[in-house]
Amino acid sequence: MKIILVGASGTVGKTIDQAFHGSEHQVIRVGKSRGDFQVNIEDPGSVAQLYQKINKAVGNFDAVVNATGEVAFAPLSQMTAEQWDLGLRSKLMGQVNLVQQALPYINERGSFTLISGILSDDPILSGVSATMVNRALEGFVIAAACELPKNLRINLVSPTVLKDSLNKYAAFFPGFAAAESYDVGQAFKKSVLGIQTGQIYKVYG
Amino acid sequence: MKIILVGASGTVGKTIDQAFHGSEHQVIRVGKSRGDFQVNIEDPGSVAQLYQKINKAVGNFDAVVNATGEVAFAPLSQMTAEQWDLGLRSKLMGQVNLVQQALPYINERGSFTLISGILSDDPILSGVSATMVNRALEGFVIAAACELPKNLRINLVSPTVLKDSLNKYAAFFPGFAAAESYDVGQAFKKSVLGIQTGQIYKVYG
Repeated sequence: MKIILVGASGTVGKTIDQAFHGSEHQVIRVGKSRGDFQVNIEDPGSVAQLYQKINKAVGNFDAVVNATGEVAFAPLSQMTAEQWDLGLRSKLMGQVNLVQQALPYINERGSFTLISGILSDDPILSGVSATMVNRALEGFVIAAACELPKNLRINLVSPTVLKDSLNKYAAFFPGFAAAESYDVGQAFKKSVLGIQTGQIYKVYG
Repeated sequence: MKIILVGASGTVGKTIDQAFHGSEHQVIRVGKSRGDFQVNIEDPGSVAQLYQKINKAVGNFDAVVNATGEVAFAPLSQMTAEQWDLGLRSKLMGQVNLVQQALPYINERGSFTLISGILSDDPILSGVSATMVNRALEGFVIAAACELPKNLRINLVSPTVLKDSLNKYAAFFPGFAAAESYDVGQAFKKSVLGIQTGQIYKVYG
């Protein structure tokens, strides 16, 4: 299976990469500035170019897995139009772009696996945009699962904060149980190699 | 209680208006072109002007209730950037604008009641943007409920298709049970006059 992994060099991306390590599957790594190919997911033109380049280099592919996307964190009363827009343009529509534009190149019975996060259920201070965008991604995935052509599947992985990221994020997630990177990688693997569609795989208790 | 009702002349708006009819509460009707005041919720500047005008005319108020917001309907594979943007700009950020910009003018213990719809749970053909935006509104409401100042409350009413709208929309909702307008009006009334916050009031079985 040829798997396009977007955001491959981030903490979650590395975990996903590791989950397929030593398997018979080929992981094609995409990053903003690193990896085999580069993309700015906020720019639909950049996403179109990415798939054209990948298609030219390796042909069609079987899975698109995304581990990246930005949202702004600020108290609700201080959120600016630009801060709202970042989450909508990057984490939300960036992932929608990755799905829509892959349709001509992805093989029959291929799959998409997107990323949201625990804030969809569990708001934190200054996380209103993250909660909003993560829920929007749930909606996109459950609706897209019903409409995708070519027997394509689509799922969403929603991890809590990773133990490997606590050094950066612990203060934002007081009292939250952290997840093992291994378990997050397995959720992505389950989506890519499984048969389910329209699912939200929550990696938290 | 002074209640700002945005989208007052629509099918849902009229139902909400009716729910407060004959009560001691004052409904201030806002529309795109009709009503006591006009607003284009997609334009943050227009929303700011609306509240300034209302404040000048009637002073502070106790509730903002919204019954309007547009999304585009198209098959996933045909959705354009402009069509995605309509739902994000109008039904999603239009309602976020209505909340954020009311904060200086709404009284302590006031409330916001926004509108989503059954497509958040129940996708239909060409409804991917509606499902996405409705879920995003859920996220906004549950997170905002935790952060709002002045003991403000915020809830979301999610109606199924109204019996009174079946003449227009029946073909889009095959097999869906339709709601009585009365019940939808009551859900808004419960939000405005009740004590709960962060709730999603679903008006469907």
